[in-house]
This record gives sequence, structure tokens and C-alpha cells, in this order.
Amino acid sequence: MEAPQFTASNDDRKKVWKLIENINIAMMVTQGEGGRFYSRPMAAQKPDKDDNLWFFTSISSPKVMEIADFPDVLLSYAEPDKNNYVSITGKAKVVQDRAKIEELWSEPLRTWWPKGKDDPDICLICITPESAEYWDSPSSAFVIGFGYVKARITGKPEEFGENKIVRL
Amino acid sequence: MEAPQFTASNDDRKKVWKLIENINIAMMVTQGEGGRFYSRPMAAQKPDKDDNLWFFTSISSPKVMEIADFPDVLLSYAEPDKNNYVSITGKAKVVQDRAKIEELWSEPLRTWWPKGKDDPDICLICITPESAEYWDSPSSAFVIGFGYVKARITGKPEEFGENKIVRL
Repeated sequence: MEAPQFTASNDDRKKVWKLIENINIAMMVTQGEGGRFYSRPMAAQKPDKDDNLWFFTSISSPKVMEIADFPDVLLSYAEPDKNNYVSITGKAKVVQDRAKIEELWSEPLRTWWPKGKDDPDICLICITPESAEYWDSPSSAFVIGFGYVKARITGKPEEFGENKIVRL
Repeated sequence: MEAPQFTASNDDRKKVWKLIENINIAMMVTQGEGGRFYSRPMAAQKPDKDDNLWFFTSISSPKVMEIADFPDVLLSYAEPDKNNYVSITGKAKVVQDRAKIEELWSEPLRTWWPKGKDDPDICLICITPESAEYWDSPSSAFVIGFGYVKARITGKPEEFGENKIVRL
């Protein structure tokens, strides 16, 4: 078992954004009273120009209060078919700016808010990422097949994939 | 936005195990110093007869120390193709029982431990689940297509899927 490589290179930052580009749902983990963890799937948007991650939610949802008390959150992205897993930690804040809601609004969000973007129930969660960790390999078959064989030959299981911690 | 339904029925417990049955990788979220979250993908095994969840890991990995300090963990299961997301919380403990390691060992684990099941680096993490939350719908297309349309007609977005919190 090898420890992950720590990095803060621009290439690795870009790689993180590339890895999550096609993952439409992230699990958002927050902390509630007594240190209890909570998580739920959230529709993911592309990062903005400052690499902030934005999510739509209901102002009355428990996570809004959890974030106010404990702004450290974790986002977990999974793309099992590609054996692609990314974990991002950062600081979350609740944003009720109507102009920002309008800017990020898209019609499929009517699934949750049939009244549309002016529904006063809507707010945003803005997450400023601090670090990311990724585990990446070309495919599950690669891990189970080639990776397994190669690991047995070379004794270096890390050769079949890549695990890096990236400062964002 | 509707609150999830709370339940402790046997059918719902069975449903949780069914939903994670074919998900081979879970993201395990632990807590480190200063309340920082950490997560990593872990090869998932089927629950044992007492519904405990077992994972292989290295005795020298940071999560082993994190669990000793803070045994509350969260497991996040994602199957994006089926729009199936499950989150399980529970208490974790580290187990070094060689007989249990032998019982749960399977050959693909040689990817990580080429020396095999007698490698002294191997230990187990046993998680006793306390509760699960699931979000389930027949398919992503259903959510984006039918669900969207139905939500607009009925104003009841919860009709296209199911969100329950299950005591385990």
C-alpha cells in the first residue's frame, strides 16, 4: 500500500476538474449535532471561473443549518464505470442572492421547484474547495485484470492507477 | 421539496441491502483531527449475517487511527446509471483477527497485497450500521424526462422517486 502523492500543480488542479466534468450528481457530506455525518445526492454544476462549486437547495433543508454551524463539507464524486472517484473538501456558505440564482438557474431544476427560479424556497450553497483527492484508472477491467496481474509481477500495485491529493 | 420518510420496517432494511448489492466500491468518510473530513473508495463486501459491513485495509493507513479516535463513519454508495444513491452511517472498529481475515479473503485482493492473506499489513474495518438513507428512482431518464414532466403537472416532485431514512 503506497501513500498518495501530494501536489499543488496546475496540471493536477485541471485534472480534478476534468475528472468531475461529466459527473452530474455529487454526494454532499455535512456534519450535524454531536458530530453526526449526513450526506445526500446533489445536482452538480460546473465550477465557476474562481473554481467555486454551486448547488441549488431549499432554504428549509437541514443542511442549510448544518453548514451555518459547521461550514467544512466534503463532496464525493463517483463514476464507477470508469473507476473514477474524487473527493473534494471545502468551506460552504449559503447564498440567497437572487441575481446569482437567476444566473445559474436551468429548466430541469423545475423538477424540484415547479414554480421556477422566483420560488423564495430556493437558495444556493457555494463551496470554496480547499483540497481534492482522486483515484483514477482507465477502467475497472484494468484494475481487476491487467492491474492485478501487473501488481503480482512487479509488487507495485500503485502502477495500475493514480492517487493524488491536490491543493485547490 | 419534501422531507424524507422515516422507517424501521424489515422491507425497507432489505431494500437498503438490495440497493447496495451490486455496488462494488463505497466511499468511506471518516473524521480526522480538527473535525476534518476524509474519504476514499473502498472495495465493498456483502453484509455478513448480522448486517455488519467489512472492508480490507492496511494497518498503517490514516483511517485506522481516525477510526480509533472517532468511530462514527459514513459510507456513500453511488450507482449513477440507475440513479441509485445510498448513504449509511455506523460505528467502525478495527479488527485484526487472522481467522476473520482468512474467511473474508478473496484472490483479487492480491492487487493490494501481493503477498496474500498472511501479510501482517492487512487488517479489517468492521462497520455496524445504524441508519441508512436512500434516494431511488428507476432511471436517470425517468428523473430528467418523465419525472420532470410529472412534477410540472402534479406539483409533487417526490412522485418520481423515493427518499427514505431507515433505522438498521
